[in-house]
Amino acid sequence: MDRVYNFAAGPAVMPEEALRRAAGEMLSYGGSGMSVMEMSHRSAAYQAIFDRAVSLFRELMGVPEGYEVLLLQGGATGQFAAVPMNLLKGYACYLDSGHFAHTAMKEAGKYGDARCAASTREEGYRRVPGQDEIRCDPGADYLYYTTNNTIYGTRFPYVPSCGSVPLVADMSSNILSEPCDVSRYGVIFAGAQKNIGPAGLTLVVVRRDLLGRASEVTPAVFNWTVMADKGSMLNTPPTYAIYMAGLCLEWLRDQGGVQAIWQRNREKAAMLYEVLDDSALYKPVADKASRSLMNVTFRTGDDDLDARFVKEAAAQGLVSLKGHRLAGGMRASIYNAMPVEGVKKLVGFMKKFEYDNHITR
Amino acid sequence: MDRVYNFAAGPAVMPEEALRRAAGEMLSYGGSGMSVMEMSHRSAAYQAIFDRAVSLFRELMGVPEGYEVLLLQGGATGQFAAVPMNLLKGYACYLDSGHFAHTAMKEAGKYGDARCAASTREEGYRRVPGQDEIRCDPGADYLYYTTNNTIYGTRFPYVPSCGSVPLVADMSSNILSEPCDVSRYGVIFAGAQKNIGPAGLTLVVVRRDLLGRASEVTPAVFNWTVMADKGSMLNTPPTYAIYMAGLCLEWLRDQGGVQAIWQRNREKAAMLYEVLDDSALYKPVADKASRSLMNVTFRTGDDDLDARFVKEAAAQGLVSLKGHRLAGGMRASIYNAMPVEGVKKLVGFMKKFEYDNHITR
Repeated sequence: MDRVYNFAAGPAVMPEEALRRAAGEMLSYGGSGMSVMEMSHRSAAYQAIFDRAVSLFRELMGVPEGYEVLLLQGGATGQFAAVPMNLLKGYACYLDSGHFAHTAMKEAGKYGDARCAASTREEGYRRVPGQDEIRCDPGADYLYYTTNNTIYGTRFPYVPSCGSVPLVADMSSNILSEPCDVSRYGVIFAGAQKNIGPAGLTLVVVRRDLLGRASEVTPAVFNWTVMADKGSMLNTPPTYAIYMAGLCLEWLRDQGGVQAIWQRNREKAAMLYEVLDDSALYKPVADKASRSLMNVTFRTGDDDLDARFVKEAAAQGLVSLKGHRLAGGMRASIYNAMPVEGVKKLVGFMKKFEYDNHITR
Repeated sequence: MDRVYNFAAGPAVMPEEALRRAAGEMLSYGGSGMSVMEMSHRSAAYQAIFDRAVSLFRELMGVPEGYEVLLLQGGATGQFAAVPMNLLKGYACYLDSGHFAHTAMKEAGKYGDARCAASTREEGYRRVPGQDEIRCDPGADYLYYTTNNTIYGTRFPYVPSCGSVPLVADMSSNILSEPCDVSRYGVIFAGAQKNIGPAGLTLVVVRRDLLGRASEVTPAVFNWTVMADKGSMLNTPPTYAIYMAGLCLEWLRDQGGVQAIWQRNREKAAMLYEVLDDSALYKPVADKASRSLMNVTFRTGDDDLDARFVKEAAAQGLVSLKGHRLAGGMRASIYNAMPVEGVKKLVGFMKKFEYDNHITR
């Protein structure tokens, strides 16, 4: 049962320790005689699993008092609607830094006035907008942005601001990968399937003073106020996904938490960007100042060669390196759970592939 | 690792064979070198898992051509909003046969005119309304009902109708437990966590001519038309829950499918109702004509004795027998995956408990 190095953009690699523990507990959790999957969400045993996941998340993320942590369903795409439903009264400002930011802005337009405060769409999203490009009005209900753009491999190297306008961030693809000052945000949300756990779980961190504003047409399951009142259990939560997230968060804590993993993430990313910068074959997709630590995107400029790269890498146990169709080329997603060894092996493969295919062309 | 008999109302007992297989495949699925949880939802390997689950469901449920099967998130409670968002233009009729039917009717009221066409609320939901009690108008957008009321242990013994008005059914707690003529329905939906798989997955079966009517404010993830166009993958689906549902559906097929499991379900329910009918101690909650095959509800009439029943049963490995707070007493949920042996053991316990506690009082 040889494990591969899985560079998928999400769902993505998970800590092997968490998977092993889940396998061992599958038929009977902690002497309960049943799988976590079979537990009533109203049982004391399950509530303890739920509370532990939330408390580990709060601790690792550094969520201050005054913020609710909600465990919901529907993915980040669900929150593209939930954000305006819960917050939009007059108008909101969006930073259009990638496909998902753009989709979120369009979805918000169904519920009110969603304005584009800055965009790099015309530049193929190769970089994120700078603070000085942001046209945000202090009367906006919120300023929305995507901290890391998975498809293009870009990341905001700064926290955008607009006076006292609440900041709303989709952190799906880099949450818990680097330190984050939660107190600068009004709302943070993330699909779990990149750095937290399996798909089917969505985390929402919301400052309490932003509750109570939901529009009449907000479905109860997307109403943050209702869900906060019900401890995220208005209805049955995705119980097993929450348990798995707890195991993954425990692993992260055992690694030394966010500070330690950030250090490792920077080292992993630096190894790959060094190959790209030294290469005559590989062309990075993202501008240097906007480079992501989680998704490293590159192309050879030759579609056939890109396809061979992906295929030959897979034969070496380096899988899911094909880029998103919107960006083309290759993408190495190196989330928290990707071991340094996986990146080293990829670096070795990239160098050999360049030597074999470039020098001789 | 002794397994208990788990009578929880959902999340609930799952087939041990499915859990064993999941445990065995946790670190590497089918030689892929990764867990199903780690697979990109856009990969060929995962698409095959997804397609197999849908095709098993279509086969077991007998879904005719002309119906879409959608795998969504948000639970039945999410669909309480999605149904009116996708269908309600003028007014809709609801059968108020229990807590969840009532909640669905109230949620629909946020989106339009949701009328009560019959109610047994004043009778404590001990029975479901009869066809002759239903005041449904042929101009309604749909007639909504809950096929099985988990909390009270009641079930519609007939399929309600109102001329050509599309019938919408929440089948969360008895889907795939008995034969169902899908062609009589416009929409069927169910949370997976009772008879299909783990929590965090919602199935929607929708007749194609009912697509294309969604209101402007429908979140994309709740828009059946968008989700049908995207093969349920507008965004990342709950990948592992779908895989587990596939394993459970495979188990159901190996049991002989719905006809065979229906026979077994009737035998299991009959054993318990026979105890209730012969007993001087236990009082059934549901009226005879409305009895559920999935949730058998009863009380002793003495809260302390009820509590002792639940506690002593648990000591015998018969767990989660406490009734819902709205119905009180006890509830034995005996979904497809509950073995006949579990019911026999419960019957034995009930008889002994009655002998020990009734005769001597």
